[in-house]
Amino acid sequence: MREVAIIGVGMSKFGELWERSFRSLITEAGLAAVKDAGIGGDDIDALYVGSMSAGRFIGQEHIGALVADEAGLTPAHIPATRVEAADASGGVALRQGYLAVASGAHDVVVVGGVEKMTDVGDVEQTNILAASADREWEAFFGATVPSLYAMMATRHMHDYGTTREQLARVSVKNHENGALNPNAAYPFTVKLDSVLTSPLVASPLRVLDMAASVDGAAAVVLCAADRVPSFTGKPVKILASGQASDSLALHDRASFTSLGATQRAAALAYRQAGITARDVNLAEVHDAFTISEVMAVEDLGFVEKGQGGFAVEKGVTTRAGSVPVNTSGGLKARGHPLGATGIAQAIEITQQLRGNAGARQVRNARIGLAHNVGGSGATATVHLLGGWE
Amino acid sequence: MREVAIIGVGMSKFGELWERSFRSLITEAGLAAVKDAGIGGDDIDALYVGSMSAGRFIGQEHIGALVADEAGLTPAHIPATRVEAADASGGVALRQGYLAVASGAHDVVVVGGVEKMTDVGDVEQTNILAASADREWEAFFGATVPSLYAMMATRHMHDYGTTREQLARVSVKNHENGALNPNAAYPFTVKLDSVLTSPLVASPLRVLDMAASVDGAAAVVLCAADRVPSFTGKPVKILASGQASDSLALHDRASFTSLGATQRAAALAYRQAGITARDVNLAEVHDAFTISEVMAVEDLGFVEKGQGGFAVEKGVTTRAGSVPVNTSGGLKARGHPLGATGIAQAIEITQQLRGNAGARQVRNARIGLAHNVGGSGATATVHLLGGWE
Repeated sequence: MREVAIIGVGMSKFGELWERSFRSLITEAGLAAVKDAGIGGDDIDALYVGSMSAGRFIGQEHIGALVADEAGLTPAHIPATRVEAADASGGVALRQGYLAVASGAHDVVVVGGVEKMTDVGDVEQTNILAASADREWEAFFGATVPSLYAMMATRHMHDYGTTREQLARVSVKNHENGALNPNAAYPFTVKLDSVLTSPLVASPLRVLDMAASVDGAAAVVLCAADRVPSFTGKPVKILASGQASDSLALHDRASFTSLGATQRAAALAYRQAGITARDVNLAEVHDAFTISEVMAVEDLGFVEKGQGGFAVEKGVTTRAGSVPVNTSGGLKARGHPLGATGIAQAIEITQQLRGNAGARQVRNARIGLAHNVGGSGATATVHLLGGWE
Repeated sequence: MREVAIIGVGMSKFGELWERSFRSLITEAGLAAVKDAGIGGDDIDALYVGSMSAGRFIGQEHIGALVADEAGLTPAHIPATRVEAADASGGVALRQGYLAVASGAHDVVVVGGVEKMTDVGDVEQTNILAASADREWEAFFGATVPSLYAMMATRHMHDYGTTREQLARVSVKNHENGALNPNAAYPFTVKLDSVLTSPLVASPLRVLDMAASVDGAAAVVLCAADRVPSFTGKPVKILASGQASDSLALHDRASFTSLGATQRAAALAYRQAGITARDVNLAEVHDAFTISEVMAVEDLGFVEKGQGGFAVEKGVTTRAGSVPVNTSGGLKARGHPLGATGIAQAIEITQQLRGNAGARQVRNARIGLAHNVGGSGATATVHLLGGWE
């Protein structure tokens, strides 16, 4: 397979953007990425878009063509493909774009992720999100995504002694980072006590343990190695792309305290890159819930199983820690516009590796990891990025 | 890129299958394809699924993981990816599977297509289908997919003298073929007069000009060239895979009588295979409406522009004609379960090239073409298949 670089990144602000449309968000992100890459519209060979549920949120399918059309790429008739894997849609789209370039089929590919969630009410949002879980065996019987993660949290606390306070510290840490991110939906800090006393959603998880449903879009430009010198965008290398699946319903999983798909995707990615978890300098992980980040840092191999809660307590995953996690603010503080999240993670890693992360910049960022999860864990992607030469 | 073969095919019966679920349909098709290929579940490296609107039809997203789970592939945690491009979802999924193998990322990939459409009522079906068109600029104002194709038909009749009878003959021909297809939803012949007097839907198109919304699933097994000898499935080569897009809304197109996406996808595919339209021995084209087939045989280069209606009148596209088109019965007689259609087309071509098409078998089938369209033409895929030798 050919080597592939990210040469441009762009994103909209994330948030409850009542005045913005699906179309305007993805176009803004795409144009920013194209400008950052220093390419023209004519250079784009193909387009991939990750979006979970535009059919339910805005009554629109056929999202690939829509985005190509809206971006003014119609005259070239480029292939435009939407992929969906619940809220791992962005990560899976990134992988398809990567394969399209690695295969030799295309040289320059734009990969976007987008979701416009706030055109429907809260109850309908919850119902749509439950379509990421097993409708027939979970959602029909009243399970929601928060309730599924609440069961994981309960079990993790029971098995490993993870505490309510440790979970809350994930939220506090990520808001500390997000407060420095101008694109974050919630760019402010939260106090430990605020998390611990926020309204209960599904015990033991509270409102401030959860990433909120927002609008947003993000895009990256991928480029084949031999074309990188043709453009001005500062390149970052995709060292590896791993993707894996697991049973849709929680009750069929081997474990309630690990995501098998994360473990498998990480193993594939580490093998492809020829590295181990110890070589990773920073990571964006899928903290849809605080317990998600606790499990992720374990499943990705940054800490021993069961130590995820203690790691955050000890500061291992802060910007100054040994493995900074979610320097962007994560899903918690940046907000979680489903399809856009996986791309936004890759953008944060790219900016950190470029040394362009501003007030959030960490030191010695040489290899970064982006980890995206669909629903309660039936899909996971792990991408490893590194410096170009 | 590596050479890729189709080594196994399988499909469910298509139809209004009230007693069947989304899960049971795709599992039936997938297992049939796996059996035909002579592979085991352990041989499967990745899964792709094309489905247009499971979110709206059955309240379920996260379709890749769902299918992997239902098929019992969970222990291996293989990557499972759903792609969507309206009713070109199957063709686009086939292309992603093809790229995944061609890139060297995977050796054996199962690609499925599925739609369960009859769990919602007719009006909701029409509304969901309109999500393949431009919601903001077409559907919100009352346009339906039939009304868009009706405009194309009207213009084609005006510009080229295409007649109402010629359109009807597409339906008659495809039902003659479909009557020989045991998996077809409507395996019976229709008389010319029946088409001409069937209820008007959107002038000049009538009920028997239109492919009906049904349930169904189809699957193929793709295999890297060097692994083909490991399995017993009779291989057919994927000579080329072309995909293209166009504006979502009809009013932005350069023409009302051609699909630019079809023309572009065909040009890409012919170039990749190093052949011309004249080398194609048979084709499955996207006859969602009778006018669709008339335009397709022109846009694919089988006849001159404007001659599509006259071609069917002269018998050019019958099983005994110079370019047999839709020997399976096409979308019209086989039925059109959106995401499944593009895969079912590839299956018909595979069976014809293998000499396994039974009563529908055409002579001298060496190169076949499968043409899948999304909505009113904003996405098109063209795949060329040939003998393995």
